[in-house]
Amino acid sequence: MHIPTFIERKRDGHELSAEEIAGFIRGYTDGEVPDYQAAAWAMAVYFKGMTATETGALTRAMMHSGSVMTHPAGSPPKVDKHSTGGIGDKVSLILAPLLACDDLWVPMISGRGLGITGGTLDKLESIPGFRVSLSENETAAQLARIGVAMIGQTANLCPADKKLYALRDVTATVPSIPLIVASIMSKKLAESLDRLVLDVKFGSGAFMQNRADAETLAAALCATGRECGVRTEAVLTPMSEPLGHTAGNALEVWESVETLQGRGPADLVKLTLDLAERIANVPRTQLAHWLDDGTAWRKWVQLVEAQGGRAADTERIVEIHATPLRHVVTASRDGKLTRMDAGLIGRACIALGAGRAKASDAIDFAVGVSGISKIGTAVQTGEPLLTVHARSDETLKAALALIGQAIEIA
Amino acid sequence: MHIPTFIERKRDGHELSAEEIAGFIRGYTDGEVPDYQAAAWAMAVYFKGMTATETGALTRAMMHSGSVMTHPAGSPPKVDKHSTGGIGDKVSLILAPLLACDDLWVPMISGRGLGITGGTLDKLESIPGFRVSLSENETAAQLARIGVAMIGQTANLCPADKKLYALRDVTATVPSIPLIVASIMSKKLAESLDRLVLDVKFGSGAFMQNRADAETLAAALCATGRECGVRTEAVLTPMSEPLGHTAGNALEVWESVETLQGRGPADLVKLTLDLAERIANVPRTQLAHWLDDGTAWRKWVQLVEAQGGRAADTERIVEIHATPLRHVVTASRDGKLTRMDAGLIGRACIALGAGRAKASDAIDFAVGVSGISKIGTAVQTGEPLLTVHARSDETLKAALALIGQAIEIA
Repeated sequence: MHIPTFIERKRDGHELSAEEIAGFIRGYTDGEVPDYQAAAWAMAVYFKGMTATETGALTRAMMHSGSVMTHPAGSPPKVDKHSTGGIGDKVSLILAPLLACDDLWVPMISGRGLGITGGTLDKLESIPGFRVSLSENETAAQLARIGVAMIGQTANLCPADKKLYALRDVTATVPSIPLIVASIMSKKLAESLDRLVLDVKFGSGAFMQNRADAETLAAALCATGRECGVRTEAVLTPMSEPLGHTAGNALEVWESVETLQGRGPADLVKLTLDLAERIANVPRTQLAHWLDDGTAWRKWVQLVEAQGGRAADTERIVEIHATPLRHVVTASRDGKLTRMDAGLIGRACIALGAGRAKASDAIDFAVGVSGISKIGTAVQTGEPLLTVHARSDETLKAALALIGQAIEIA
Repeated sequence: MHIPTFIERKRDGHELSAEEIAGFIRGYTDGEVPDYQAAAWAMAVYFKGMTATETGALTRAMMHSGSVMTHPAGSPPKVDKHSTGGIGDKVSLILAPLLACDDLWVPMISGRGLGITGGTLDKLESIPGFRVSLSENETAAQLARIGVAMIGQTANLCPADKKLYALRDVTATVPSIPLIVASIMSKKLAESLDRLVLDVKFGSGAFMQNRADAETLAAALCATGRECGVRTEAVLTPMSEPLGHTAGNALEVWESVETLQGRGPADLVKLTLDLAERIANVPRTQLAHWLDDGTAWRKWVQLVEAQGGRAADTERIVEIHATPLRHVVTASRDGKLTRMDAGLIGRACIALGAGRAKASDAIDFAVGVSGISKIGTAVQTGEPLLTVHARSDETLKAALALIGQAIEIA
């Protein structure tokens, strides 16, 4: 294949064939197609887009650049959920064990936090001993035994995506719908799913700032999922305030445990059920019941123990990761809380050390924000609005400057 | 400078500052900015264009990526001409010595042929012994002595352009007006000119297929020349039939000698004077007189001898490079010649071996087409329309197939 012609055809708005796209991704994965040609092509895609057929072909080509999970014949339906990422979004930690209560298999491959968005793997790794890098055989055995595994992307999974994503990050070609779709879906589809639900978020704490952009992305994700033979649905959810009352790795594990034991905050429980019911066999009421009656908690215990952690540690995770500084932010006046900006709370968490500004940064599991009040709450002067968990005076100061801007009382 | 942000700003249609552009080109020349970032940026420029100010800044940055000619104080005005390239376009070989008759300095840096367009350097190298790679000192001394030097791009000249052009060639980013302008003008302006005339061609044998595109390119070239302080004018010329009666390296040297000795074909003489008068001190009539009275020929003799050739060889260049096969194409009917397609004649020359399909191809100086009849000529059945000079039956056959399509008699 003549790569300059391939780039030119996309540049001029022509539709690329599945064979061409597969050849390009194969060549790029093998190193035959150099980064500079992939970069020019990605920029052409940024400007010219891709049809649903092309996006499907790109997704399949990237998925098949590495190993794809195989499940035994006759095993239960394989389901998973993906979120485009938000602040305080710990839904995966609750939803994965919950769905495994329903005679479903949940082979969940998650990512790490980057930017203001937290990552499921980082949260799980705040549990002492928890291993997210299982081998393919270990994952298969665990699914057969307890129906759920929560793991990271192995070296064999979608190598084309790893390479292309790193390239896009340094060539200003990240915000392209078909490239985003192929990146997300190639990894999810490599789990060989039957059903997938997508949580596409919009607002200050999300990748997509407005609902219209989120709708476009959701439609493209669903079209590609269906194109690839997976029952795919999307839920659009606002991300203007953090989800639940916590943001930060260990703090979010604590809140997940609370939810799995039937004491979850209303918004977190609602979103978990909204997503879970789209891919569950049983009705919503049954799922809600499993959160309340200990069934989901017992599955979580199995999951944590299977992957090297101790369930009891997850109940005392905040003590395990206690920070030297806890600072309570209080209401400066009487009124109604009208703003608790997710984007700024997310940036405060980064300032505290809870996330990564770049991929090589270390994570501080302990830090974050807890007791976050919800928008609409009536508050009185001096009443706590949230608690900041900080490692140092310096990071506390930086976080408080951001949090000050995040809060409005009317 | 953060290169992803630099690329993003162009992608989003913002104007880049001269400092940003200079920093990017410096980094790219030094190897600090990798090819993949330059490729993404070039594709963003393809889609978003550049303002005149940006194009000027890019041109200057590329010009200053290497050495720039310096001329002694008080030396005559420095002038040059650039053509966007056509079939049978040997104007440079006539115009450079002609202008040097006029107490002007012509420090002409030319290129090699690529694609269907011939290159001045290739034509000059068909003269036995002619050296196009003079050192900077040799060039300066020759200018001081005879007022003209015809040389190739040295390694020191515009290294950023060499690197960027090679990259554009393999990333489908060649046809971008600002990138074309900066590539052409950075090399010409590195000659430290006072006046520049541009021959912007349009038609089947030119880079620009139609007049509107050629006008756009001409306006951008002139704007950038003036922005950089050089008196710049452009002439738009059609390239629907070959210029003069020959196409092919040695054949074109022969026709240039004919013209320098006062026997040039009307169209070639006219275009040479059209261009020369824009940058000459003396009027057109004087320039025409110098072609007729032997003045221009004597300057050519000086030029050829100064650069290692023998002037007498240029008068017998066709015998020196005789081909084993000469095939006369004749008129198949009585009528008027209505088409002698420049693009197809150019492709026939490539098929014969006169040019390069890729940069590493070798050139056959001898082959080409001579005696090309002009459009509008009345012809009779059996009358010669052109002569093909070929090395082998195989290449002759390929050329004749193209030439057959090039000719129409009505």
